[in-house]
Amino acid sequence: MTDARIAHPALAARRMPADEAAALIAPGMTVGMSGFTGAGYPKAVPQALAQRILAAHGRGEAFGLRILTGASTAPELDGALAKVGGIDFRLPYQSDPELRARINAGLIEYMDIHLGQVAQYAWFGFLGRIDVAVIEVAGILPDGRLVPSTSVGNNKTWLDLADKVVLEVNRRQPPGLDGMHDIYYGTALPPERKPIPLLHPGDRIGEPYLKVDPAKVVAVVETDGPDRLGRFAPPDETSRRIAGHLVEFFRHEIRAGRLHEHLLPLQSGVGNIANAVLAGLREGGFGGLTAFTEVIQDGMLDLIGEGIIQTASATALSLSPEGVERFVRDIDTYRKRIVLRPQEISNHAELVRRLGCIAMNGMVEADLYGNVNSTHVAGTSIINGIGGSGDFARNGFLSCFVTPSTAKGGAISTIVPMVSHVDHTEHDVAVLVTEQGLADLRGLSPKQRARQVIAHCAHPDYRPLLQDYFDRALRDSRGKHTPHLLNEALSWHQRYLDTGSMKP
Amino acid sequence: MTDARIAHPALAARRMPADEAAALIAPGMTVGMSGFTGAGYPKAVPQALAQRILAAHGRGEAFGLRILTGASTAPELDGALAKVGGIDFRLPYQSDPELRARINAGLIEYMDIHLGQVAQYAWFGFLGRIDVAVIEVAGILPDGRLVPSTSVGNNKTWLDLADKVVLEVNRRQPPGLDGMHDIYYGTALPPERKPIPLLHPGDRIGEPYLKVDPAKVVAVVETDGPDRLGRFAPPDETSRRIAGHLVEFFRHEIRAGRLHEHLLPLQSGVGNIANAVLAGLREGGFGGLTAFTEVIQDGMLDLIGEGIIQTASATALSLSPEGVERFVRDIDTYRKRIVLRPQEISNHAELVRRLGCIAMNGMVEADLYGNVNSTHVAGTSIINGIGGSGDFARNGFLSCFVTPSTAKGGAISTIVPMVSHVDHTEHDVAVLVTEQGLADLRGLSPKQRARQVIAHCAHPDYRPLLQDYFDRALRDSRGKHTPHLLNEALSWHQRYLDTGSMKP
Repeated sequence: MTDARIAHPALAARRMPADEAAALIAPGMTVGMSGFTGAGYPKAVPQALAQRILAAHGRGEAFGLRILTGASTAPELDGALAKVGGIDFRLPYQSDPELRARINAGLIEYMDIHLGQVAQYAWFGFLGRIDVAVIEVAGILPDGRLVPSTSVGNNKTWLDLADKVVLEVNRRQPPGLDGMHDIYYGTALPPERKPIPLLHPGDRIGEPYLKVDPAKVVAVVETDGPDRLGRFAPPDETSRRIAGHLVEFFRHEIRAGRLHEHLLPLQSGVGNIANAVLAGLREGGFGGLTAFTEVIQDGMLDLIGEGIIQTASATALSLSPEGVERFVRDIDTYRKRIVLRPQEISNHAELVRRLGCIAMNGMVEADLYGNVNSTHVAGTSIINGIGGSGDFARNGFLSCFVTPSTAKGGAISTIVPMVSHVDHTEHDVAVLVTEQGLADLRGLSPKQRARQVIAHCAHPDYRPLLQDYFDRALRDSRGKHTPHLLNEALSWHQRYLDTGSMKP
Repeated sequence: MTDARIAHPALAARRMPADEAAALIAPGMTVGMSGFTGAGYPKAVPQALAQRILAAHGRGEAFGLRILTGASTAPELDGALAKVGGIDFRLPYQSDPELRARINAGLIEYMDIHLGQVAQYAWFGFLGRIDVAVIEVAGILPDGRLVPSTSVGNNKTWLDLADKVVLEVNRRQPPGLDGMHDIYYGTALPPERKPIPLLHPGDRIGEPYLKVDPAKVVAVVETDGPDRLGRFAPPDETSRRIAGHLVEFFRHEIRAGRLHEHLLPLQSGVGNIANAVLAGLREGGFGGLTAFTEVIQDGMLDLIGEGIIQTASATALSLSPEGVERFVRDIDTYRKRIVLRPQEISNHAELVRRLGCIAMNGMVEADLYGNVNSTHVAGTSIINGIGGSGDFARNGFLSCFVTPSTAKGGAISTIVPMVSHVDHTEHDVAVLVTEQGLADLRGLSPKQRARQVIAHCAHPDYRPLLQDYFDRALRDSRGKHTPHLLNEALSWHQRYLDTGSMKP
C-alpha cells in the first residue's frame, strides 16, 4: 500500500478519490486550503467540491463555504469554487478573474488582510473555527510527517487548527523539495511568545517537515498536476526604466554610506517590474545579495542560480514552465540557497524589521502626499489585495513602491491628487518610482513630498494638472499642512468612471 | 563645584546661563530635543533660543531650525520657538497651539512619523546630521552618566548622534527617578540586529542611565521648573459609556476564551477616554494587569498605585499636579512597578507584537469600512499627529479606536462615508467604539464592517444618512467590494467647511 510518496501505512489506507474527499466538506464550513501565488494549492478536491456544490445548487440547496488560503491560488481552486457560487467568504490575497468578478459584483465577501497576520488572527480565534484543512504536500513520511509542496503559506496553521484534514499528495512536485523547507514550531500565543531566533535570511530555525495528527486526516487524495505556471514577458522599456531609477538610487545610497554594497535583504513583489529590478541589479554588477521575501519568481531564481543572490527566504515558488525546469534540474543547488517558510515567518514584522528588508512593491496609484493604493480601482473594485506589501513596507529599512506613471494607454494617471483607497499611509512610504523618475520622500513634510512626486514621478501629460491642483490647494485649502480641495480630490477618478479617462 | 545633581567635575565646569548655551545653536541647524507628552523637555534653552531668534529676525537675519523631539513638548519649547518663527521643520508628534497654527498656515514643514520609528530613521541617516542635542536630565553622575528625567523619548539617539550636546539639569525633577529607567544599548543597524530580549512588560534589559561622551557636552544649564502638568477632568458620561462598551467587550472575549482574565499588556492613548477605560477596568474588578504603553497618565498611575496594574512600561510620565504629588510621595513603590524606556523600545514593533498589546487609541473619525483618521480635520489641518497609535494598532493583539460619535455639539459626525485622511487602514483596525456602542470588525469584509459600524457606532442623528449613503453606494457603485460614490464620499467634510455642519 505504501510507497515513497505515501509512506505511512494508516494514511495510505485513507486514500480515496477526490469526490469522496470533497463529500466530507459540508455547507457553511470554514476550509483552510494551501496555496500561495499559484503554487502548492490543492488541485483535485476543490474541483470535486465545485461539482458537489453545483449539484446541490441544482437541487435548490444552499452550499457556500468560507475559504481561507495562503494567498492567490489558481483556476482549479478559486476559479472553480467561485464559478459555481461556492464561496461565501474568502481571505486573504486572491488574483483569480472569476473570484474577483464575483467579489466586485458584491456576491462574495472578501477580507483583505496582511499576509503576515493571517496565522495569528486564526490562532487568536478571530476567524472562527477551522473545520477542514485541504493541503497539498509533496509526500508523507513513514512517521506521518509531511514534505511540504512548492508553497508553505498558512499550512502549518490550518493543519494545527482544523478539526479534519484532507491531504493531496501531488506526485508531480519534485522529490528534491525535501529539505528545502523550514517550519518553525516555536510560535505561541501571547503572553507566552518568545523572540524568533532568526538573524539572517538563510537561518534554519525549525524543521523541514509539517506535522499533523494522523487521527485528524480523513482523506488522502493523489494528484499529478503542475502548479499554475505563469509566463513572464521579458521586461519592457517602462519596467527597465523603473528598475534603472531604483538601481541608481541604491548606488546613490551606497555612496552616501547609508547602504552596504551588498544592500540589505531584498523583498520584491510579484510581476514584471520586480523581475526587471532584479535584472537591473545583475546588469549593474551587484553581488553577495540576499532576499527575505514572499515569493521566488523566475527573475530571482536566475540570480540565485548565478550566486548573485546567495540566500533567499520565501514562502512560495511561483515559476514559469522554464523556471520549473531549471529549478528541478539544479534542485540540489537551490536547496542550499533557498529556504521556504510559513508566511507567518516570511512576512513577520519582527524579522522584517530586524533584517532591515528593502521592500519593493507594485502599486495601483500614489497621491501627492505619498499615500499608496495597492488594491482598488477607483476606490471600489478590488484587484488582488494588499498581500505582504504592508508587512514589508511598514517594517523594512526602505519602503519603495513602483508603477508605470500611466495606465490604460494614458487614460489613467497613477499619480493622483488623492488616492481613492489607502493601503499604505503617508507614514509608511519612503520612495516612489515610475518610469519618469524616483521621488525620495524620506524625512519630508507633505508639501515637500508633493513637489518631489510631481517633479519626478508624474507623467508629463498629467504633471501640469497635478501642479495646478497643488497650487490651487495651497491657496484655497482650509488647512495647509496637507493641502486639498475636497470637492475635487477624487474628481480624477470620477472623470475616469464617467468618460473613460482622467484627462479633462 | 560639583553637587549631587551635577557630580562630574568637568561637566560641572561647563555650567552656563541658558542664553550662553543657546548661542551655541546656529541658524539652519538640526536640533534633537528631549520631551515626550509634556514631560522631560528642556525648559530654559529653547526660550533663550527663541529670544536669540527674535533678535536675529529683528536684525533682518534668517534664523530657522529643524527641531526633532520625542513627541509633544510644551509652550516653553514648541510654543516659544514657533511663536518667533524659529522652526522651519519639525518632527514627530506635537500638540502645541502656536506650533499647530503655524503648521496649518503652511509656515512650518511638519513630518508626522510613527513614534517607534524616529530613532531608527535617524540612525539610518534619513533625517540628516543632528547638530545639537538639548536634553533635560535629572542629574549627572560622578562618571558622567546621566539620570534621565520624566521622559526618555529619543534622548539616547540624540545624545549618541549629535555633534554637540547641551544638558539641562532640572533640580525640580524628583531624585527618586534614579533607577526607574531602562536604557537599552543593544540596538544596531541591520544587518547586525539581534532579537530584543524583552519577554514581559517589566523586564529590565538595559541600564538605568544614559551615556554621553563628556567631550561633546558644550553646556550644562541648571533649571528648576515643573513639566507641563495637565489637568484631567473626571470622565464625563460619554467617556464612561465608551469605557463601558470596551470593558464589556473584554469580558465577552474572556468568556469566549480569547482573552485571559488578566487581559494582555494594555496600551492606552492619552486623554480622558483612556482614563475612563482604566477607571472602568478598576470598577469592573479587573486585576493582575500590565501595561506596555507610551505614557503613564494619572489614570494609570492610580491603578499602578493600587496594584491593579502590577507592572507598567512606558517612555514618559504625563501627570497632573496632583499626580506628581502622589508619584513623588510613593516613588519607591512606583520605581518597582514602572519602567521608563526609550520610545524606540516602548513602541517597538517586535515587542508590541510579541507581548500582544491591547491597543486603545483615540481617533478623529472612522469610515464605514473601518479606515481611521487620527490626525486631520477635514483632510487638510493637522491636529497633533499619529503618535504611537500605528506602532500599537498594527502590531498589537487587538487594535481598538475610540471617539465620541459626534463633535462640535453634533455638527460633526465622527463616523463618515469616507475618512478625509487615512492613518490606519482597513487592514489595521479591529474594534471601533463610540458612546453608542462597539463595532467588532474582526474577520469581516468591508460591507460586513459597514453594517456593524452604522448599527453600533453612528450617532442616531447621522445613522439614517450613513445607511442611505451605503444603500445607494451598494446600488450605484462601480465596484461593490468597497461601495462608494466618489463624488459624494467627501461631501460631508465639504459641507462642514461650507456650512459649519455635516448635516444637510
